[in-house]
Amino acid sequence: MGSDNRAPVTVVGLGSMGSALANAFLDKGHPTTVWNRSPEKAEALVAKGAVLAATPAEAIAASELVVVCVLDYRAMREIIDSLGEAPAGRVIVNLTSGTPDEARQAATWAAERGVGYVDGAIMATPPMIGSEHALIFYGGPKALYDANAEALASIAGAGTYLGEDAGLPSLYDVALLGLMWTTWAGFMHSLALVGSEQVKAEAFLPFAQAWFEHVVNPEIPRIAAQVDQGTYPDGGSALGMQAVAVEHLVDASRAQKVDAALPEFLLERAEQAIKQGHAGDGFASVYEVLRKARG
Amino acid sequence: MGSDNRAPVTVVGLGSMGSALANAFLDKGHPTTVWNRSPEKAEALVAKGAVLAATPAEAIAASELVVVCVLDYRAMREIIDSLGEAPAGRVIVNLTSGTPDEARQAATWAAERGVGYVDGAIMATPPMIGSEHALIFYGGPKALYDANAEALASIAGAGTYLGEDAGLPSLYDVALLGLMWTTWAGFMHSLALVGSEQVKAEAFLPFAQAWFEHVVNPEIPRIAAQVDQGTYPDGGSALGMQAVAVEHLVDASRAQKVDAALPEFLLERAEQAIKQGHAGDGFASVYEVLRKARG
Repeated sequence: MGSDNRAPVTVVGLGSMGSALANAFLDKGHPTTVWNRSPEKAEALVAKGAVLAATPAEAIAASELVVVCVLDYRAMREIIDSLGEAPAGRVIVNLTSGTPDEARQAATWAAERGVGYVDGAIMATPPMIGSEHALIFYGGPKALYDANAEALASIAGAGTYLGEDAGLPSLYDVALLGLMWTTWAGFMHSLALVGSEQVKAEAFLPFAQAWFEHVVNPEIPRIAAQVDQGTYPDGGSALGMQAVAVEHLVDASRAQKVDAALPEFLLERAEQAIKQGHAGDGFASVYEVLRKARG
Repeated sequence: MGSDNRAPVTVVGLGSMGSALANAFLDKGHPTTVWNRSPEKAEALVAKGAVLAATPAEAIAASELVVVCVLDYRAMREIIDSLGEAPAGRVIVNLTSGTPDEARQAATWAAERGVGYVDGAIMATPPMIGSEHALIFYGGPKALYDANAEALASIAGAGTYLGEDAGLPSLYDVALLGLMWTTWAGFMHSLALVGSEQVKAEAFLPFAQAWFEHVVNPEIPRIAAQVDQGTYPDGGSALGMQAVAVEHLVDASRAQKVDAALPEFLLERAEQAIKQGHAGDGFASVYEVLRKARG
């Protein structure tokens, strides 16, 4: 399809991410209308060919596909609700960050207004937007996603439709962010431990990287397989034995006067799994504890 | 050196790890004496050429280099203390698991008895023992380590001397184990989140693996560099903004009724770092909180 035939799109919200989205649509030849509460954010985009709408109503009237990327879900709903009946028949692809429940409530809210609604979660930084590798998760009615998939490919080559549940993109999003922060926190705790004896992070780093590569990461697919099977063979290192080593970690953290909360959490969960009968299973049996809310 | 010239070694403790150590010494041609509280554990080793000592005293008299790998430090001290003056002049390389403080106390205890003492922490599974890639950390007097380094290379090709402090091997050990369990717990928490909507671990796995490879792991050396520098530039994503997303993770974990303790820990530490003035810094500024004991 030549760029003359690209679908018109509207981008609401021109923070660093919204601007990157509008920029990518322009790069791929989409007639692009933009709106932002502070119109000066649109200047560079207008210079590149974007149309700056004077009001949200004008922005949303300009294109059937409306991509929203604002501060939070409340801001998204306030902007759309200010329009009265205007947006009926439009498709909102909401890339605002939030929780699965907020996304589901937004889907219901949109349905009540006759607005098509697809939720999305951007797993990329603004500079990555528009590239083949940029990942955005989508959830909502499949027909709506399919009808707009080609246009959406302009902002993220690796767009992935997860299912009808509008809450899934945010769920995947927070799940990936959670394992990221947790891994970083675990690494920083290890740096705090060795740092308490004046060992430089740089000196410890090669051991940590080899450990990630040869020991930590290879276990990830095995943990996934065990979780799906619901059985946790120990692979030579039973949780009952590992819990003794986790206690060493707790004791060492306290003795070295670094924050012991993370090791304490690990020990508590290992002990709970042991109480539930997993002493002879592998570490992945802790999943049976983590998957349930406490108390 | 031909195998006829290999140094005699004694291995005390024949659990799965101690047996693997004795086996590796035998494979490399060391005259190997073994002792274990339950002598039947020695059968396979004796068939291979090991000498089974009748008592700990006999075992320790047999070789200048005595490698100990027993249940805990208390067991190690009980065995040696049962000998009276016998072990003076020997070098104990203690590969028993424990804490840095236990290792330091053992070094003092050994010095009082005229026994050379090197502490070690095995970062390998029993099947890896004897290989070129097997890693054991050592700490203690450098001259003692150097004098025995060649013999110790028979059990772990990647043996690494960390310094005079006998506590360092255990410190590195628990630090690496801690980041391992933490990373696994973070991954399992992400599986619990998506699993709460019946998403299979297998379906989520490719996204998690790509995320580890392209987003999580590349940040590890950057975090190390920032920790050494004591400055935490945000790289485009300030902690103040990230904390909002951590809140989404906490909210989603509660709403999906999975264990929210790990996200709550992350949020508390991010908020503490923000209170300490790191809102505009990157996530690695959380190190400044983790490196200090609470309260």
